[in-house]
Amino acid sequence: MAPKYKLTYFPIAGLAEQIRFLFSYGGIEFEDHRIDPESWPTLKSTTPAGQLPTLEVDGKVLFQSIAIDRYLGHIVGLAGKTLLEDCEIDAVADTITDLRLGIRAWYQQEEGPKKEELKEKLLNEIFPFYFSKFEQWAVANGGYLALGRLTWVDIVAASLFEVFDNMAASKLQISSMLNGYPNLQKLQSTVFNIPSIKAWIEKRPADKPH
Amino acid sequence: MAPKYKLTYFPIAGLAEQIRFLFSYGGIEFEDHRIDPESWPTLKSTTPAGQLPTLEVDGKVLFQSIAIDRYLGHIVGLAGKTLLEDCEIDAVADTITDLRLGIRAWYQQEEGPKKEELKEKLLNEIFPFYFSKFEQWAVANGGYLALGRLTWVDIVAASLFEVFDNMAASKLQISSMLNGYPNLQKLQSTVFNIPSIKAWIEKRPADKPH
Repeated sequence: MAPKYKLTYFPIAGLAEQIRFLFSYGGIEFEDHRIDPESWPTLKSTTPAGQLPTLEVDGKVLFQSIAIDRYLGHIVGLAGKTLLEDCEIDAVADTITDLRLGIRAWYQQEEGPKKEELKEKLLNEIFPFYFSKFEQWAVANGGYLALGRLTWVDIVAASLFEVFDNMAASKLQISSMLNGYPNLQKLQSTVFNIPSIKAWIEKRPADKPH
Repeated sequence: MAPKYKLTYFPIAGLAEQIRFLFSYGGIEFEDHRIDPESWPTLKSTTPAGQLPTLEVDGKVLFQSIAIDRYLGHIVGLAGKTLLEDCEIDAVADTITDLRLGIRAWYQQEEGPKKEELKEKLLNEIFPFYFSKFEQWAVANGGYLALGRLTWVDIVAASLFEVFDNMAASKLQISSMLNGYPNLQKLQSTVFNIPSIKAWIEKRPADKPH
Protein backbone atom coordinates (compact mmCIF):
# COMPACT_ATOMS: atom_id res chain seq x y z
CA MET A 1 0.00 0.00 0.00
CA ALA A 2 1.25 3.47 -0.86
CA PRO A 3 2.41 5.44 2.19
CA LYS A 4 0.32 8.33 3.46
CA TYR A 5 2.21 11.63 3.06
CA LYS A 6 1.52 14.83 4.99
CA LEU A 7 3.63 17.88 4.14
CA THR A 8 3.51 20.70 6.70
CA TYR A 9 4.70 24.21 5.87
CA PHE A 10 3.73 27.86 5.91
CA PRO A 11 1.13 28.99 3.33
CA ILE A 12 3.83 29.92 0.82
CA ALA A 13 6.10 28.28 -1.77
CA GLY A 14 9.39 28.74 0.14
CA LEU A 15 11.27 25.55 0.96
CA ALA A 16 8.24 23.31 0.47
CA GLU A 17 7.47 24.05 -3.17
CA GLN A 18 10.33 21.87 -4.38
CA ILE A 19 8.76 19.00 -2.40
CA ARG A 20 5.33 19.73 -3.91
CA PHE A 21 6.99 19.67 -7.35
CA LEU A 22 8.57 16.28 -6.63
CA PHE A 23 5.25 14.81 -5.50
CA SER A 24 3.60 16.22 -8.62
CA TYR A 25 6.36 14.85 -10.84
CA GLY A 26 5.87 11.39 -9.34
CA GLY A 27 2.08 11.57 -9.48
CA ILE A 28 2.02 10.93 -5.73
CA GLU A 29 -0.92 12.06 -3.59
CA PHE A 30 0.01 14.11 -0.53
CA GLU A 31 -1.72 16.26 2.05
CA ASP A 32 -0.53 19.84 1.50
CA HIS A 33 -0.98 21.08 5.05
CA ARG A 34 -0.45 24.86 5.20
CA ILE A 35 -0.39 26.18 8.74
CA ASP A 36 -1.75 29.47 9.96
CA PRO A 37 1.46 31.46 10.65
CA GLU A 38 -0.07 32.53 13.99
CA SER A 39 0.07 28.93 15.18
CA TRP A 40 3.82 28.65 14.46
CA PRO A 41 5.19 29.75 17.86
CA THR A 42 3.17 26.94 19.49
CA LEU A 43 3.91 24.39 16.78
CA LYS A 44 7.64 25.10 16.59
CA SER A 45 8.67 23.11 19.65
CA THR A 46 6.79 20.06 18.39
CA THR A 47 8.90 19.84 15.20
CA PRO A 48 12.13 17.80 15.22
CA ALA A 49 14.47 20.75 14.68
CA GLY A 50 12.27 23.81 15.23
CA GLN A 51 11.81 24.22 11.49
CA LEU A 52 9.43 23.58 8.62
CA PRO A 53 8.90 21.86 6.26
CA THR A 54 8.29 18.47 7.80
CA LEU A 55 6.99 15.46 5.92
CA GLU A 56 5.08 12.75 7.74
CA VAL A 57 5.34 9.37 6.06
CA ASP A 58 2.89 6.98 7.66
CA GLY A 59 3.40 8.93 10.89
CA LYS A 60 7.24 9.10 10.81
CA VAL A 61 8.34 12.75 10.73
CA LEU A 62 11.02 13.64 8.18
CA PHE A 63 12.64 17.06 8.29
CA GLN A 64 15.23 19.27 6.54
CA SER A 65 14.07 20.17 3.05
CA ILE A 66 17.06 18.86 1.12
CA ALA A 67 16.95 15.52 2.99
CA ILE A 68 13.26 15.25 2.04
CA ASP A 69 14.03 16.20 -1.58
CA ARG A 70 16.66 13.46 -1.75
CA TYR A 71 14.28 10.89 -0.27
CA LEU A 72 11.54 11.76 -2.76
CA GLY A 73 14.07 12.03 -5.58
CA HIS A 74 14.86 8.36 -5.09
CA ILE A 75 11.18 7.45 -4.92
CA VAL A 76 10.21 9.25 -8.13
CA GLY A 77 13.21 7.96 -10.11
CA LEU A 78 15.24 11.18 -10.18
CA ALA A 79 18.25 10.02 -8.14
CA GLY A 80 21.64 8.71 -9.26
CA LYS A 81 22.25 5.14 -10.34
CA THR A 82 25.43 4.79 -8.29
CA LEU A 83 26.85 6.27 -5.09
CA LEU A 84 29.16 8.48 -7.15
CA GLU A 85 26.21 9.79 -9.15
CA ASP A 86 24.27 10.50 -5.95
CA CYS A 87 27.27 12.35 -4.56
CA GLU A 88 27.37 14.58 -7.64
CA ILE A 89 23.69 15.48 -7.22
CA ASP A 90 24.13 16.05 -3.47
CA ALA A 91 27.08 18.40 -3.98
CA VAL A 92 25.04 20.54 -6.37
CA ALA A 93 22.16 20.64 -3.87
CA ASP A 94 24.45 21.78 -1.05
CA THR A 95 25.95 24.45 -3.31
CA ILE A 96 22.46 25.81 -4.03
CA THR A 97 22.00 25.95 -0.25
CA ASP A 98 25.23 27.96 0.04
CA LEU A 99 23.73 30.48 -2.39
CA ARG A 100 20.43 30.48 -0.50
CA LEU A 101 22.23 31.29 2.76
CA GLY A 102 24.02 34.18 1.06
CA ILE A 103 20.65 35.59 0.00
CA ARG A 104 19.18 34.97 3.46
CA ALA A 105 22.01 36.85 5.19
CA TRP A 106 21.12 39.96 3.17
CA TYR A 107 17.35 39.43 3.38
CA GLN A 108 17.25 39.09 7.16
CA GLN A 109 19.57 42.02 7.82
CA GLU A 110 17.85 45.13 9.21
CA GLU A 111 17.82 48.20 6.95
CA GLY A 112 21.01 50.19 7.25
CA PRO A 113 24.57 50.43 5.96
CA LYS A 114 25.27 46.74 6.72
CA LYS A 115 22.33 45.71 4.55
CA GLU A 116 23.60 47.91 1.71
CA GLU A 117 27.01 46.29 2.06
CA LEU A 118 25.48 42.79 1.92
CA LYS A 119 23.43 43.83 -1.12
CA GLU A 120 26.57 44.95 -2.96
CA LYS A 121 28.26 41.69 -2.03
CA LEU A 122 25.27 39.73 -3.29
CA LEU A 123 25.13 41.55 -6.63
CA ASN A 124 28.87 41.80 -7.26
CA GLU A 125 30.23 38.62 -5.73
CA ILE A 126 27.72 36.00 -4.65
CA PHE A 127 25.34 36.04 -7.63
CA PRO A 128 28.05 36.16 -10.32
CA PHE A 129 29.97 33.41 -8.55
CA TYR A 130 27.14 30.94 -8.03
CA PHE A 131 25.01 31.63 -11.09
CA SER A 132 27.96 31.50 -13.48
CA LYS A 133 29.00 28.24 -11.80
CA PHE A 134 25.50 26.79 -12.23
CA GLU A 135 25.36 28.11 -15.79
CA GLN A 136 28.63 26.28 -16.55
CA TRP A 137 27.25 23.09 -15.06
CA ALA A 138 24.07 23.41 -17.12
CA VAL A 139 26.15 23.84 -20.27
CA ALA A 140 28.30 20.83 -19.39
CA ASN A 141 25.27 18.67 -18.56
CA GLY A 142 23.06 19.22 -21.58
CA GLY A 143 20.78 21.70 -19.82
CA TYR A 144 20.71 19.99 -16.41
CA LEU A 145 22.84 20.57 -13.32
CA ALA A 146 24.30 17.08 -12.96
CA LEU A 147 24.71 13.74 -14.68
CA GLY A 148 23.63 15.01 -18.11
CA ARG A 149 19.98 14.25 -17.34
CA LEU A 150 17.05 15.43 -15.24
CA THR A 151 17.57 14.73 -11.53
CA TRP A 152 15.88 15.91 -8.34
CA VAL A 153 18.33 18.77 -7.95
CA ASP A 154 17.04 20.36 -11.17
CA ILE A 155 13.55 20.38 -9.66
CA VAL A 156 14.94 21.94 -6.48
CA ALA A 157 16.88 24.56 -8.46
CA ALA A 158 13.94 25.52 -10.69
CA SER A 159 11.69 25.98 -7.68
CA LEU A 160 14.20 27.85 -5.51
CA PHE A 161 15.22 30.19 -8.34
CA GLU A 162 11.54 31.18 -8.58
CA VAL A 163 11.29 31.58 -4.79
CA PHE A 164 14.43 33.74 -4.72
CA ASP A 165 13.04 35.95 -7.48
CA ASN A 166 9.65 36.34 -5.83
CA MET A 167 11.27 37.14 -2.51
CA ALA A 168 14.12 39.36 -3.50
CA ALA A 169 14.52 40.30 -7.15
CA SER A 170 12.35 43.43 -6.98
CA LYS A 171 14.16 44.57 -3.81
CA LEU A 172 17.44 44.25 -5.71
CA GLN A 173 16.11 46.30 -8.65
CA ILE A 174 16.47 43.38 -11.04
CA SER A 175 13.66 41.52 -12.77
CA SER A 176 15.24 38.11 -12.22
CA MET A 177 18.42 36.70 -10.74
CA LEU A 178 18.68 34.50 -13.84
CA ASN A 179 19.15 37.45 -16.21
CA GLY A 180 22.26 36.75 -18.24
CA TYR A 181 22.19 33.02 -17.55
CA PRO A 182 20.27 31.60 -20.53
CA ASN A 183 20.93 27.98 -19.68
CA LEU A 184 19.51 28.41 -16.19
CA GLN A 185 16.44 30.16 -17.60
CA LYS A 186 16.06 27.23 -19.99
CA LEU A 187 16.52 24.72 -17.17
CA GLN A 188 13.78 26.41 -15.16
CA SER A 189 11.50 26.46 -18.19
CA THR A 190 12.20 22.77 -18.88
CA VAL A 191 11.17 21.86 -15.33
CA PHE A 192 8.12 24.14 -15.30
CA ASN A 193 6.95 22.58 -18.58
CA ILE A 194 7.05 18.98 -17.41
CA PRO A 195 3.32 18.23 -17.80
CA SER A 196 2.74 17.06 -14.21
CA ILE A 197 4.59 20.08 -12.78
CA LYS A 198 2.89 22.44 -15.21
CA ALA A 199 -0.47 21.10 -14.04
CA TRP A 200 0.53 21.66 -10.40
CA ILE A 201 1.67 25.23 -11.09
CA GLU A 202 -1.66 25.98 -12.76
CA LYS A 203 -3.71 24.81 -9.79
CA ARG A 204 -1.47 25.60 -6.79
CA PRO A 205 -2.64 28.04 -4.12
CA ALA A 206 -1.16 31.54 -4.20
CA ASP A 207 1.29 32.50 -1.46
CA LYS A 208 -0.25 34.07 1.62
CA PRO A 209 2.58 36.19 3.01
CA HIS A 210 1.95 37.51 6.52
CA MET B 1 40.28 -2.91 -7.98
CA ALA B 2 39.85 -0.48 -5.11
CA PRO B 3 39.46 3.11 -6.27
CA LYS B 4 42.30 5.57 -5.74
CA TYR B 5 41.25 8.31 -3.32
CA LYS B 6 42.86 11.74 -3.00
CA LEU B 7 41.52 14.08 -0.33
CA THR B 8 42.53 17.73 -0.71
CA TYR B 9 42.19 20.22 2.15
CA PHE B 10 44.03 22.78 4.21
CA PRO B 11 46.61 21.46 6.73
CA ILE B 12 44.02 21.34 9.51
CA ALA B 13 41.22 19.12 10.80
CA GLY B 14 38.31 21.42 9.80
CA LEU B 15 35.77 19.94 7.43
CA ALA B 16 38.11 17.19 6.22
CA GLU B 17 38.73 15.40 9.50
CA GLN B 18 35.32 13.68 9.41
CA ILE B 19 36.30 12.31 5.99
CA ARG B 20 39.66 11.12 7.34
CA PHE B 21 37.77 9.44 10.20
CA LEU B 22 35.46 7.66 7.74
CA PHE B 23 38.41 6.40 5.68
CA SER B 24 40.08 5.21 8.89
CA TYR B 25 36.90 3.52 10.05
CA GLY B 26 36.64 1.64 6.76
CA GLY B 27 40.34 0.75 6.67
CA ILE B 28 40.54 2.49 3.29
CA GLU B 29 43.83 3.91 2.02
CA PHE B 30 43.69 7.53 0.87
CA GLU B 31 46.10 10.28 -0.07
CA ASP B 32 45.80 12.97 2.60
CA HIS B 33 46.84 15.93 0.46
CA ARG B 34 47.27 19.04 2.64
CA ILE B 35 47.83 22.17 0.61
CA ASP B 36 50.05 25.07 1.47
CA PRO B 37 47.51 27.80 2.37
CA GLU B 38 49.51 30.23 0.24
CA SER B 39 48.60 28.22 -2.85
CA TRP B 40 44.87 28.49 -2.14
CA PRO B 41 44.10 31.70 -4.08
CA THR B 42 45.49 30.03 -7.22
CA LEU B 43 43.93 26.65 -6.53
CA LYS B 44 40.47 28.00 -5.65
CA SER B 45 39.25 28.56 -9.20
CA THR B 46 40.20 25.00 -10.16
CA THR B 47 37.84 23.47 -7.56
CA PRO B 48 34.22 22.72 -8.54
CA ALA B 49 32.65 25.24 -6.12
CA GLY B 50 35.58 27.35 -4.94
CA GLN B 51 35.81 25.32 -1.74
CA LEU B 52 37.71 22.54 -0.04
CA PRO B 53 37.60 19.67 0.77
CA THR B 54 37.48 17.86 -2.52
CA LEU B 55 37.83 14.13 -2.93
CA GLU B 56 39.17 12.67 -6.13
CA VAL B 57 37.94 9.14 -6.79
CA ASP B 58 39.84 7.66 -9.72
CA GLY B 59 40.10 11.20 -11.07
CA LYS B 60 36.44 12.24 -10.60
CA VAL B 61 36.26 15.24 -8.26
CA LEU B 62 33.68 15.06 -5.46
CA PHE B 63 32.96 18.16 -3.37
CA GLN B 64 30.84 19.45 -0.46
CA SER B 65 31.93 17.77 2.77
CA ILE B 66 28.54 16.36 3.78
CA ALA B 67 28.00 14.89 0.31
CA ILE B 68 31.41 13.21 0.58
CA ASP B 69 30.60 11.96 4.10
CA ARG B 70 27.36 10.41 2.83
CA TYR B 71 29.15 8.74 -0.08
CA LEU B 72 31.80 7.25 2.19
CA GLY B 73 29.20 6.40 4.83
CA HIS B 74 27.57 4.07 2.32
CA ILE B 75 30.91 2.57 1.33
CA VAL B 76 32.02 1.79 4.89
CA GLY B 77 28.63 0.37 5.95
CA LEU B 78 27.47 3.29 8.09
CA ALA B 79 24.44 4.36 6.03
CA GLY B 80 20.77 3.52 6.44
CA LYS B 81 19.19 0.31 5.22
CA THR B 82 16.20 2.06 3.63
CA LEU B 83 15.46 5.45 2.06
CA LEU B 84 13.61 6.49 5.23
CA GLU B 85 16.62 5.57 7.36
CA ASP B 86 18.93 7.52 5.07
CA CYS B 87 16.60 10.51 5.30
CA GLU B 88 16.80 10.42 9.11
CA ILE B 89 20.61 10.44 9.00
CA ASP B 90 20.63 13.21 6.37
CA ALA B 91 18.32 15.44 8.42
CA VAL B 92 20.63 15.15 11.44
CA ALA B 93 23.64 15.99 9.26
CA ASP B 94 21.96 19.11 7.87
CA THR B 95 20.97 20.19 11.39
CA ILE B 96 24.62 19.93 12.48
CA THR B 97 25.41 22.17 9.51
CA ASP B 98 22.82 24.68 10.75
CA LEU B 99 24.69 24.79 14.08
CA ARG B 100 28.02 25.11 12.29
CA LEU B 101 26.75 28.09 10.30
CA GLY B 102 25.61 29.74 13.54
CA ILE B 103 29.12 29.36 14.95
CA ARG B 104 30.66 30.57 11.70
CA ALA B 105 28.54 33.75 11.66
CA TRP B 106 30.00 34.71 15.06
CA TYR B 107 33.52 33.48 14.26
CA GLN B 108 33.86 35.44 11.02
CA GLN B 109 32.40 38.66 12.42
CA GLU B 110 34.93 41.44 13.04
CA GLU B 111 35.52 42.42 16.66
CA GLY B 112 32.96 44.91 17.88
CA PRO B 113 29.46 45.21 19.33
CA LYS B 114 27.95 43.02 16.59
CA LYS B 115 30.36 40.22 17.48
CA GLU B 116 29.43 40.52 21.16
CA GLU B 117 25.77 40.32 20.20
CA LEU B 118 26.37 37.19 18.10
CA LYS B 119 28.36 35.67 20.98
CA GLU B 120 25.46 36.20 23.37
CA LYS B 121 23.10 34.69 20.84
CA LEU B 122 25.40 31.70 20.42
CA LEU B 123 25.70 31.08 24.15
CA ASN B 124 22.10 31.82 25.12
CA GLU B 125 20.12 30.62 22.12
CA ILE B 126 21.99 28.65 19.48
CA PHE B 127 24.05 26.32 21.70
CA PRO B 128 21.24 25.47 24.13
CA PHE B 129 18.84 24.89 21.25
CA TYR B 130 21.03 22.62 19.13
CA PHE B 131 23.00 20.80 21.81
CA SER B 132 19.92 20.00 23.88
CA LYS B 133 18.26 18.76 20.68
CA PHE B 134 21.24 16.54 19.86
CA GLU B 135 21.40 15.39 23.50
CA GLN B 136 17.73 14.34 23.30
CA TRP B 137 18.40 12.46 20.08
CA ALA B 138 21.39 10.69 21.65
CA VAL B 139 19.23 9.65 24.60
CA ALA B 140 16.47 8.41 22.28
CA ASN B 141 18.94 6.50 20.08
CA GLY B 142 20.96 4.57 22.64
CA GLY B 143 23.90 6.96 22.51
CA TYR B 144 23.84 7.66 18.78
CA LEU B 145 22.19 10.49 16.84
CA ALA B 146 19.96 8.40 14.59
CA LEU B 147 18.58 4.89 14.00
CA GLY B 148 19.67 3.57 17.40
CA ARG B 149 23.05 2.54 16.03
CA LEU B 150 26.35 3.98 14.82
CA THR B 151 25.98 5.79 11.47
CA TRP B 152 28.18 8.16 9.49
CA VAL B 153 26.54 11.18 11.09
CA ASP B 154 27.92 10.16 14.51
CA ILE B 155 31.41 10.21 13.01
CA VAL B 156 30.71 13.65 11.52
CA ALA B 157 29.32 14.96 14.82
CA ALA B 158 32.21 13.63 16.93
CA SER B 159 34.75 15.23 14.61
CA LEU B 160 32.97 18.56 14.20
CA PHE B 161 32.34 18.92 17.94
CA GLU B 162 36.10 18.64 18.41
CA VAL B 163 36.77 21.13 15.61
CA PHE B 164 34.27 23.60 17.09
CA ASP B 165 35.92 23.29 20.50
CA ASN B 166 39.43 23.74 19.12
CA MET B 167 38.35 26.73 17.08
CA ALA B 168 36.07 28.54 19.43
CA ALA B 169 35.59 27.18 22.94
CA SER B 170 38.48 29.14 24.48
CA LYS B 171 37.26 32.34 22.78
CA LEU B 172 33.87 31.79 24.40
CA GLN B 173 35.44 31.26 27.85
CA ILE B 174 34.18 27.69 28.05
CA SER B 175 36.28 24.55 28.09
CA SER B 176 33.94 22.65 25.75
CA MET B 177 30.64 23.26 24.01
CA LEU B 178 29.60 19.80 25.17
CA ASN B 179 29.66 20.76 28.88
CA GLY B 180 26.32 19.77 30.34
CA TYR B 181 25.54 17.32 27.55
CA PRO B 182 26.79 13.99 28.92
CA ASN B 183 25.33 11.88 26.14
CA LEU B 184 27.10 13.94 23.49
CA GLN B 185 30.36 13.68 25.41
CA LYS B 186 29.82 9.93 25.55
CA LEU B 187 29.00 9.80 21.83
CA GLN B 188 32.22 11.61 21.01
CA SER B 189 34.18 9.30 23.26
CA THR B 190 32.54 6.23 21.69
CA VAL B 191 33.61 7.38 18.22
CA PHE B 192 37.13 8.40 19.30
CA ASN B 193 37.59 4.97 20.89
CA ILE B 194 36.70 2.94 17.83
CA PRO B 195 40.10 1.20 17.39
CA SER B 196 40.67 2.32 13.77
CA ILE B 197 39.75 5.92 14.58
CA LYS B 198 41.77 5.87 17.79
CA ALA B 199 44.78 4.70 15.77
CA TRP B 200 44.25 7.55 13.27
CA ILE B 201 43.95 10.15 16.04
CA GLU B 202 47.23 8.92 17.55
CA LYS B 203 49.16 9.27 14.32
CA ARG B 204 47.43 12.21 12.56
CA PRO B 205 49.39 15.38 11.79
CA ALA B 206 48.82 18.37 14.06
CA ASP B 207 46.91 21.35 12.65
CA LYS B 208 49.06 23.99 10.98
CA PRO B 209 46.98 27.12 11.40
CA HIS B 210 48.22 30.08 9.34
